[in-house]
Amino acid sequence: MNKKNLLILVTNDDGIDAPGIHQLIDYVKDMGEIVAIAPDSPNSGQSSAISVNKVLKITNHPDYNGARMHSVNGTPVDCVKLGMHAVLDRRPDLILSGINHGSNSGNSIIYSGTMGAVLEGCMLGIPSIGYSFHSHDQKRDISACRHVVETITSRVIEHGLPHGTCLNVNVPKCEAVCGIKVVRAARGYWTEEYAEYIDPHGQPFYWLTGKFHNEEPGNPETDLYWTDRGYASVVPCHPDQSATDMITTIEHLLD
Amino acid sequence: MNKKNLLILVTNDDGIDAPGIHQLIDYVKDMGEIVAIAPDSPNSGQSSAISVNKVLKITNHPDYNGARMHSVNGTPVDCVKLGMHAVLDRRPDLILSGINHGSNSGNSIIYSGTMGAVLEGCMLGIPSIGYSFHSHDQKRDISACRHVVETITSRVIEHGLPHGTCLNVNVPKCEAVCGIKVVRAARGYWTEEYAEYIDPHGQPFYWLTGKFHNEEPGNPETDLYWTDRGYASVVPCHPDQSATDMITTIEHLLD
Repeated sequence: MNKKNLLILVTNDDGIDAPGIHQLIDYVKDMGEIVAIAPDSPNSGQSSAISVNKVLKITNHPDYNGARMHSVNGTPVDCVKLGMHAVLDRRPDLILSGINHGSNSGNSIIYSGTMGAVLEGCMLGIPSIGYSFHSHDQKRDISACRHVVETITSRVIEHGLPHGTCLNVNVPKCEAVCGIKVVRAARGYWTEEYAEYIDPHGQPFYWLTGKFHNEEPGNPETDLYWTDRGYASVVPCHPDQSATDMITTIEHLLD
Repeated sequence: MNKKNLLILVTNDDGIDAPGIHQLIDYVKDMGEIVAIAPDSPNSGQSSAISVNKVLKITNHPDYNGARMHSVNGTPVDCVKLGMHAVLDRRPDLILSGINHGSNSGNSIIYSGTMGAVLEGCMLGIPSIGYSFHSHDQKRDISACRHVVETITSRVIEHGLPHGTCLNVNVPKCEAVCGIKVVRAARGYWTEEYAEYIDPHGQPFYWLTGKFHNEEPGNPETDLYWTDRGYASVVPCHPDQSATDMITTIEHLLD
């Protein structure tokens, strides 16, 4: 990667006012020119959603710590797409998303707006990294992320990333991480998914909740094994969900 | 799969009133008990988005062709999750999503609400299939889908699907398909992504548009090669986006 005049697009899914995006800017501000383009409101759980039937607008905000700040009334993927179309004057060299307030370990990546932006960057051929901290408390000290963000971002600036691969980085809720482990996402599913209520007219309504059930808690090949033990996890991800190893099996099954 | 008392959950992303979901029900109604749970409004491009900070409600609609019909004020994934939690009295044997009015070929799957519901079903261990027809015109005759839907659905009822694998089926805009091909998604990216306007106050606003640029149009291993030639494509998909083949490469890169 050409380190002179490096352009870094920073985004997130918690919105332009979330502390995590400011801390991410603090940690990488000396690595290049930073432009933040993030949703104007919280967009957790937005996955790779795009706004197909909605007018999008860009709002300019005051600079933060040397970074230009913009918001979009859309999803994290909208921010990447529209940011590249209408805000940036050249193609970014790197896309960073986060620091998310909450875990994107295990199969949470599929719902993650943080990672939606990262997968979008990857499809566009831009090295892209998502950072998440395992606490939803936006007031909590997340300085344990600093060393992880600095190390991984600088290595990726140095070496790039293989085409079609992006990174999902998770930092456990601790004061200092024990190290960094490159692994795959733990397999699992969500249980006890809804809180139930009755409205004043006697009708039920529901609010999403749920607990992640890790199907392989003792497996050191997985991200949650290591974040549970104080390590930061790095999961290499690819946007293509084709199960190429299953093509012959499915051919026989449909025959 | 136990074919007695088979319970089939039908959903989509175009909403409970879209013609495609009615046609899907018409094509599979003799294969089991059908319950449709779909968004109350169009949800194209919603990917695997979930409603994390919104009250969800279920609305009951009149039966259609023997199927119970329900809508949810949320995304396709919300429909699967909440439908299983609060509508169905037992676990469904099969989830069918569609018939989508528009293509979900190539890397469009990552934005697809149709496929969001399918990937959700797959993570829950339920055989799940998404059907899409390559026309956005909801009035267009989609009877070319009938044979494809009947064939693939009945084979999956007969044989099940491998754990962690679901199907993305695309039917080209034609009167009758030439056959069915099991392939992977074509690689590509979107270009010319926004129409630009000026509002009455002189401020710009944007509307998502764009054309898919197929990076490998002549490759018979890909879905678009075959749909362009009048065949239905079946892409086996998995929800897990971990790039396990890249773990060693990334370990060295970060070292």
